[in-house]
Amino acid sequence: MKVQVLKKTSNELKIEIEGEGHSLCNVLQKALIEDDTVDMAGYNVPHPLVSKAIVYVRTKERRKPEAAIKDAVKKIRAQNKEFRASLEKALKSYRRSES
Amino acid sequence: MKVQVLKKTSNELKIEIEGEGHSLCNVLQKALIEDDTVDMAGYNVPHPLVSKAIVYVRTKERRKPEAAIKDAVKKIRAQNKEFRASLEKALKSYRRSES
Amino acid sequence: MKVQVLKKTSNELKIEIEGEGHSLCNVLQKALIEDDTVDMAGYNVPHPLVSKAIVYVRTKERRKPEAAIKDAVKKIRAQNKEFRASLEKALKSYRRSES
Amino acid sequence: MKVQVLKKTSNELKIEIEGEGHSLCNVLQKALIEDDTVDMAGYNVPHPLVSKAIVYVRTKERRKPEAAIKDAVKKIRAQNKEFRASLEKALKSYRRSES
Repeated sequence: MKVQVLKKTSNELKIEIEGEGHSLCNVLQKALIEDDTVDMAGYNVPHPLVSKAIVYVRTKERRKPEAAIKDAVKKIRAQNKEFRASLEKALKSYRRSES
Repeated sequence: MKVQVLKKTSNELKIEIEGEGHSLCNVLQKALIEDDTVDMAGYNVPHPLVSKAIVYVRTKERRKPEAAIKDAVKKIRAQNKEFRASLEKALKSYRRSES
Repeated sequence: MKVQVLKKTSNELKIEIEGEGHSLCNVLQKALIEDDTVDMAGYNVPHPLVSKAIVYVRTKERRKPEAAIKDAVKKIRAQNKEFRASLEKALKSYRRSES
Repeated sequence: MKVQVLKKTSNELKIEIEGEGHSLCNVLQKALIEDDTVDMAGYNVPHPLVSKAIVYVRTKERRKPEAAIKDAVKKIRAQNKEFRASLEKALKSYRRSES
């Protein structure tokens, strides 16, 4: 995966992600949209057969767009970690109830 | 459902959709992204508990953003229509093979 | 687009859609999930490079799965129609305010 | 987040996730669908206002469904980690080119 900054202003960030398509963009966008300091989040997959995506985020007031995207990544990571732990626990508890 | 134009320039359109959330936005965005004349498409659901969404589209060169969004709607409609017909046909053909 | 019924019981329907991928499946699944008589809705795109998708729906009690999927299609259609009308109205009203 | 196993057979796993909705389910389903050993993946959010989701996965042949879901989680995590590193690198390289 290769990321490139295409545009960066105080409230806008546009990055190109090589080697990824809809899947990662979708997750990122959902996490960005849940952030109150984000004004708009979108993406584009310019060529359906080329695995290259562009993610765009625009923040409100003094919120830096790169901070918003880093926070989105952290949030996905924390959610994933929590799910993994809860799943393990559930599978163990189920096995115990079965035996 | 109530739609309001928030911003309109030669290449940008930002609309607010009252009475809809992620679901419609997702479909619209996917259809917009598949359009080569679209530079970026995104959306936001500012308040998770309020059914109000903002859709944003930015087009390339001389493509009008309102034309892009209208074409996206047409495309979804045509796809839906085709699926409905194909599904009916499949169900009939299955019933025939069963009896 | 070609649809084929792969499995049909009183509460389950599994169809194969040739010529479509994630996009249509996603919309269908979302609409199916919003239906209270639907127990589970899922899909699969077995080969990422082949445009063929499998949609699966399981309904509750006496609800027929083919009725659930037809209702999902109707719902998407109605939403689309309403959006189109509301968008036209919004664009007209914006133009009037501009001139 | 609390996870509970609702059903588990040699090829099927159905879990309930309390405290999560469409967002996590979507990511999980996408990752599951990309797995060749997965026959079908779906989910349901039975009550839109209650943050509780049900995820369902059915695997092929001897693949254990709990292994498929654990691998999906691992994959999302690896993708996230890689993106984070690539993003940091891109932001640094951009800052350098700016100064």
